[in-house]
Amino acid sequence: MKVDLIIKSKWIAPVIPKATLLEDSAVIVKDKRIVDLCPQEELKTQYIAENTVHLSNHILIPGLVNSHGHAAMALLRGVADDLSLNEWLENRIWPIEQGIVNRDFVLEGTNLAIAEMIASGTTCFADMYFFPDEVAKAAISANIRVQTASPILDFSTIWADTADEYILKATKIHDQYRNDELVYTAFGPHAPYSISDEPLKKIRVLADELDIPIHMHIHETKKEIEDSIAEFGCRPFERLHNLGLITPKLNSIHSTQLLSNEISIMGALGTNVIHCPSSNMKLASGFCDVNSLIHQGVNVALGTDGAASNNSLNMFNEMRTAALLAKAVSDDAAALPSYQALEMATINGAKALGIDELIGSLEPEKFADITAVSLNECNTLPVNNPISHLVYAANSSQVTHVWVSGESIYNEGVLITMNKNQILDSALKWQDRIPKELAL
Amino acid sequence: MKVDLIIKSKWIAPVIPKATLLEDSAVIVKDKRIVDLCPQEELKTQYIAENTVHLSNHILIPGLVNSHGHAAMALLRGVADDLSLNEWLENRIWPIEQGIVNRDFVLEGTNLAIAEMIASGTTCFADMYFFPDEVAKAAISANIRVQTASPILDFSTIWADTADEYILKATKIHDQYRNDELVYTAFGPHAPYSISDEPLKKIRVLADELDIPIHMHIHETKKEIEDSIAEFGCRPFERLHNLGLITPKLNSIHSTQLLSNEISIMGALGTNVIHCPSSNMKLASGFCDVNSLIHQGVNVALGTDGAASNNSLNMFNEMRTAALLAKAVSDDAAALPSYQALEMATINGAKALGIDELIGSLEPEKFADITAVSLNECNTLPVNNPISHLVYAANSSQVTHVWVSGESIYNEGVLITMNKNQILDSALKWQDRIPKELAL
Repeated sequence: MKVDLIIKSKWIAPVIPKATLLEDSAVIVKDKRIVDLCPQEELKTQYIAENTVHLSNHILIPGLVNSHGHAAMALLRGVADDLSLNEWLENRIWPIEQGIVNRDFVLEGTNLAIAEMIASGTTCFADMYFFPDEVAKAAISANIRVQTASPILDFSTIWADTADEYILKATKIHDQYRNDELVYTAFGPHAPYSISDEPLKKIRVLADELDIPIHMHIHETKKEIEDSIAEFGCRPFERLHNLGLITPKLNSIHSTQLLSNEISIMGALGTNVIHCPSSNMKLASGFCDVNSLIHQGVNVALGTDGAASNNSLNMFNEMRTAALLAKAVSDDAAALPSYQALEMATINGAKALGIDELIGSLEPEKFADITAVSLNECNTLPVNNPISHLVYAANSSQVTHVWVSGESIYNEGVLITMNKNQILDSALKWQDRIPKELAL
Repeated sequence: MKVDLIIKSKWIAPVIPKATLLEDSAVIVKDKRIVDLCPQEELKTQYIAENTVHLSNHILIPGLVNSHGHAAMALLRGVADDLSLNEWLENRIWPIEQGIVNRDFVLEGTNLAIAEMIASGTTCFADMYFFPDEVAKAAISANIRVQTASPILDFSTIWADTADEYILKATKIHDQYRNDELVYTAFGPHAPYSISDEPLKKIRVLADELDIPIHMHIHETKKEIEDSIAEFGCRPFERLHNLGLITPKLNSIHSTQLLSNEISIMGALGTNVIHCPSSNMKLASGFCDVNSLIHQGVNVALGTDGAASNNSLNMFNEMRTAALLAKAVSDDAAALPSYQALEMATINGAKALGIDELIGSLEPEKFADITAVSLNECNTLPVNNPISHLVYAANSSQVTHVWVSGESIYNEGVLITMNKNQILDSALKWQDRIPKELAL
């Protein structure tokens, strides 16, 4: 059979089947999709390839799925550190955004973020920010997969004025990209405290009709719970449950403040949690009880959050931090073993985004979204355990190759689909525009 | 004035004075030592240098001080993950060590670890392992600074048979290297549960006589406390306090289980804590209350611990994890700001090791132990806050140059004093010798 690409690799972690590790095998790609995984010794009798890549000290993994972020905020990296969520958001981030965010900011900031994400092995990211059409444009140009969650708020911003206008724009964005192979869409109601019941009801109905996820910050901090009890007489979770939002379509971002009955309901109803451990720690938001969520059957995916609260978009950091934190929080060193952290960063993300039939594992018929990581470095030798090394020991700079839909977008340190110098220059330009009295 | 080396850099974080950031300045080096820091514009009128290095997008920091580890265990990276400390130590690490550890293991494992540490910006490391003379030999050959804590236990190992023999060997090692500029020594009684009172009393007296630190795992887990109460009728801290060990000479490693009165005593008596956040999380040992320790005046330094329980020797990971974890644990996003994490990884380490008059900051008369980090990458632009970027956003692969005593030991990805290929080959050789039934 003639194929487009054969990637031979010392190790392959396809993620499905669970915790599998193949040795001296290859991934075969044709027409953007994976057609087979087989031992290298069987290749000759079966496949003739246009391109063959030999990776003798590497591990192939599904391209990483960053399930929550605000890409354009890469331009605000480091402007407001070591502050609580409310102080950070209300006195710094929102005022800075008000003065600076426009279409160019979003396009150029997203390009900066995409460059960082590709170089650290991410092939798909979920994004919640203004001008999602600019985010989509940047992703298409770079040939990376994205799910844009169109923001929805009760109050006016540069993107829209009323909840209805936000919702209308979200449906238009969905319509615009419904047949795109790289761009997927979601509704992005910001948080229970920034959106009222009526628009949430509309979003629920529309999400069912369009069959797309709802991406929402939920139970990020204690204050959010207290404020909701004061305003609505109940916890945000209960309010959302009453509105019918606790469904498999919901991606509950953060979720550091869950009671055990809320975790049970989430598990029973098939809701997804997007865990952002670095951001939660940096903003002292609280601890997400990942171990209990997993044991109750909740699908837990991983996100970096935006670079203003992490401050990195590096999913290697996030896998490592998630695995370490889950052990510490659950007082159980066996919690969240390395293969499970890799699942959270791949197939669980794909599932949350509703595209796990297309990506998230290295299986025939899925898109060839693949990341190669060299383990032949002082910090990952001896290779006593390749999947452990990926999660606990590897540096994202060991990512050598990234493919999306079988197309090479990163090769030995070089971004193939992006102009790195232009991106660096643009970042420096925006640096000068951030009001100094709000930064630091 | 004729000098040996001028390093011009866009930014310099000298660490002392506190939280300082110099722009467009230079570090001047002569006879292994820093002689001056000055603005670049003043250079011409003052200094003529043999070598000048221009770093236009970089930040210079004091070489990082890794204040606790077991370097040779780099060869055991990934052999026993996702297990509790007791299971990990008693059923995996100790049996594996018994079968495999010898002089060659220590020399070659330490070389592997040193290569990883240099490439991630570390210029000094504290080490507790068998055959400390091999560790010293490796460090001298690589031109990196080390403090070897000679292990002391009640029971027999490949290094010695009785506590007295361990102590004798420790004093001999001290004598051997007392005049070496790269090698410093300490006593390394393993932990309260592995050493009895009599040898601890001897160690206290000898540490005072020789004026060197005592490096000891203390209050790492709950079980250690419970066992001590059962055996000695008191917590390990109380026992050590009664033995007179709570002094400025003591480096208390881990210390995840401290009561507030114990923290007060530590602060009052000037004891040091070596915080190893990744290892503590990975082994679910508990949370070290760094914020309280700092507020009580305890000097808190940072260590990676060994690669079998981290699994990386990367101090950038450790600074980031420490800063994030301190905020989460103390429920205060303002806890452990980035400049303080950098202090913990530099001057506080030097202080714990008792060599803060020699290293730990970029100040005249100190050894020129310096690390340069490029910030001109997608993940550290815009440079809204260079010190924040170092801690929260930078990848250790952005380390471009490392000097120890003014000698270049790392230059743009190349190890100058070590043979990288030989180190990688040696790691693969040892990989084959680890008994497979004990690994994984």
